[in-house]
Amino acid sequence: MNFLNEVTHRYPETISFAPGRPYDGFFEVEQIFTHIRRYLRHLEEQGASPAEIRDTLFQYGPTGGRIRELIADSLRKDENIDVPPEAVVVTVGCQEAMFLALRALVSMPEDVLLVSSPCYPGITGAARILGFEPTPVPERAAGFHCADLQTALAAERARGRRPRAFYVVPDHSNPSGNTMSLEERHSLLELADREDILVLEDSPYRLVSPGQQVPTLKSLDRYRRVVHLGSYSKTLFPGARVGFAVADQHVVDREGNAGLLADELTKLKSMVTVNTSPLAQAVVGGMLLAADGRTSDLNAETSAHYGAAMKAVLKELDANFPERDRAALGVRWNEPGGGFFLGVDVPFRADNAALVRSAEEYGVVWTPMSYFHPQGGGERSLRLSISYLTHDDIVEGIARLARFIRAEAPGGD
Amino acid sequence: MNFLNEVTHRYPETISFAPGRPYDGFFEVEQIFTHIRRYLRHLEEQGASPAEIRDTLFQYGPTGGRIRELIADSLRKDENIDVPPEAVVVTVGCQEAMFLALRALVSMPEDVLLVSSPCYPGITGAARILGFEPTPVPERAAGFHCADLQTALAAERARGRRPRAFYVVPDHSNPSGNTMSLEERHSLLELADREDILVLEDSPYRLVSPGQQVPTLKSLDRYRRVVHLGSYSKTLFPGARVGFAVADQHVVDREGNAGLLADELTKLKSMVTVNTSPLAQAVVGGMLLAADGRTSDLNAETSAHYGAAMKAVLKELDANFPERDRAALGVRWNEPGGGFFLGVDVPFRADNAALVRSAEEYGVVWTPMSYFHPQGGGERSLRLSISYLTHDDIVEGIARLARFIRAEAPGGD
Repeated sequence: MNFLNEVTHRYPETISFAPGRPYDGFFEVEQIFTHIRRYLRHLEEQGASPAEIRDTLFQYGPTGGRIRELIADSLRKDENIDVPPEAVVVTVGCQEAMFLALRALVSMPEDVLLVSSPCYPGITGAARILGFEPTPVPERAAGFHCADLQTALAAERARGRRPRAFYVVPDHSNPSGNTMSLEERHSLLELADREDILVLEDSPYRLVSPGQQVPTLKSLDRYRRVVHLGSYSKTLFPGARVGFAVADQHVVDREGNAGLLADELTKLKSMVTVNTSPLAQAVVGGMLLAADGRTSDLNAETSAHYGAAMKAVLKELDANFPERDRAALGVRWNEPGGGFFLGVDVPFRADNAALVRSAEEYGVVWTPMSYFHPQGGGERSLRLSISYLTHDDIVEGIARLARFIRAEAPGGD
Repeated sequence: MNFLNEVTHRYPETISFAPGRPYDGFFEVEQIFTHIRRYLRHLEEQGASPAEIRDTLFQYGPTGGRIRELIADSLRKDENIDVPPEAVVVTVGCQEAMFLALRALVSMPEDVLLVSSPCYPGITGAARILGFEPTPVPERAAGFHCADLQTALAAERARGRRPRAFYVVPDHSNPSGNTMSLEERHSLLELADREDILVLEDSPYRLVSPGQQVPTLKSLDRYRRVVHLGSYSKTLFPGARVGFAVADQHVVDREGNAGLLADELTKLKSMVTVNTSPLAQAVVGGMLLAADGRTSDLNAETSAHYGAAMKAVLKELDANFPERDRAALGVRWNEPGGGFFLGVDVPFRADNAALVRSAEEYGVVWTPMSYFHPQGGGERSLRLSISYLTHDDIVEGIARLARFIRAEAPGGD
């Protein structure tokens, strides 16, 4: 990703479809103060003394988090996920939740983490910090297919390895934009139970996507096979650095004590970050209280905004690559109903050299899809992010991209 | 530590010398808002637009941190540590700084981290999460002695291992309360250079201690051998969860790029927590601005408070154990000039069973010093924390402790 940042920095006039950062037009500084005060008022209503309220902001807090109840309540209302607050661990963004889950689950040299590939680099990076490489399960053009996971599991077991978990972004995936069907979700949960593995579900985009979403894996999880990794970076704001893990699996620790996987994650967290900033939790708590737990309500406007941006990108791709010459040119893309990303297959190597040409000569930047494949793949594909651009930039940016693609295509201009 | 929490919970009426949490009488909720506004005003004065100010709070920030300049400025004024802002990485508390430093420095099976023992459990825990055990360097009654580190280094090299770093709390150590002399500091830095190891300096208590402090190792570091691990949990407040690492060592990464060790830590951080909450950084930034970087000034009152508490504990120990029968009884303690902790040697095993008797029968709680020895030691010693008690509780608590110790002593009541 460093190379991408350098390119963007070197050509500041380009239109960039690279960053997955949220649109910030709906943020307002004063809201921070309002949210903190709302949370403090809530503590007061719950009977906290002034000294207790003060200590909630200023002192160390419980390692598992201060706002577990509010998160559990919100998960029930927003996602039909019904877990006790003790199953929730508040983390420093979803990244720490991933990191802790991997540390808890992958502890022996034979333990294996499988990941849908292409794949979010945060999970690959967390695995590498812990000293192991995840095993990719290739995604098809239409998205994840259970049979491919089954094949990969069998191959790992044949090598004497022990599959522990499978990581996936089931809704509007980063980077592919694909969404797993309801049927595939049920199959995955049954497979996970049969194969005795956990599913790490990471789904930051669903509540900022327009329309009805497919149910989360966790809400369908009758076997306690899903660890749900939560992010508020898209639904509330990235600057809070507040995420969470839902881990209601029953486990027995080394000393023989029975507890939840959430307790294990909490113990690990105490040696990585101690607590998630109680101040940041207070802002998030205030936002959840403002919406009575319904972050989906908070995001009605945001979802409409991103939905319109995605539609605009798809419309401009359609207009710039008329259907009749698309196949001949070798250009293809998927049509996500939400999320921040889509994938475009192109008829040439979409590598760093191509990226530099695209930036320098055409003024448009994108992300090589190969960046997201832990072990090769995606060489002729690129990721577009729609989250941060104005409508005018989208129109102009896709026109530039089309000129670039046509020029790079074999026999192109 | 879980056992200790359980005991404290089971006997809520006890006076506890266990927790090392800061005294909170000087905290005020409204200050949070004042500090954030001061930081935002600073951004405005620096020429930031309203949109940039908004994004500073709400968006993802640079992984290395937003307030590196303010921290570097403060280190110059408070600690005579002169490093460029690029050598600073803002972390989620000092714990994350430790974790990242260990991950960067200990990567091969033969790599060794040495720690002064007894030792802060955060460093041992971080090492264990990364899959290794630190090597203890026993502290003497008067504190750390360079010759003991040299012996430990030689023993590790003789075993074919590669010492990488030595972790120490040079000022008013947690748990022992000892402070390293200026002479020993110079010797340590020369030893580190000779032996080609780094020193991880963790010193959270010096600016909340009364009177003149011995210079930090980092300020004396002419060989760039010191990585300074910073905490604001005691000088500002724990709820920010903002700490930092100062790592100005020149390194070359795997791709052959030259940079600072701080850059390596930043890359690792991007896969653990992505950023430190920009909101939490804004509060800390506002506090640093309020003091024009001099956190020592901010802590004049706090230092006096802790200094008085330490003096009260020492006075009550003196009163309860008159000097004439101290040796016969086998009781001894050190006399720290600051910090939160002191060690008391007792004439019996200060283990969990003794802790329960102390809580149940005498209404006083302390921490077994053995908790802080990574590989055995401290069985007849306990740690007292002075940071969180009122004067009356100190007087009554030490009286209770004295009754307990006298009862437990061989031939006691």
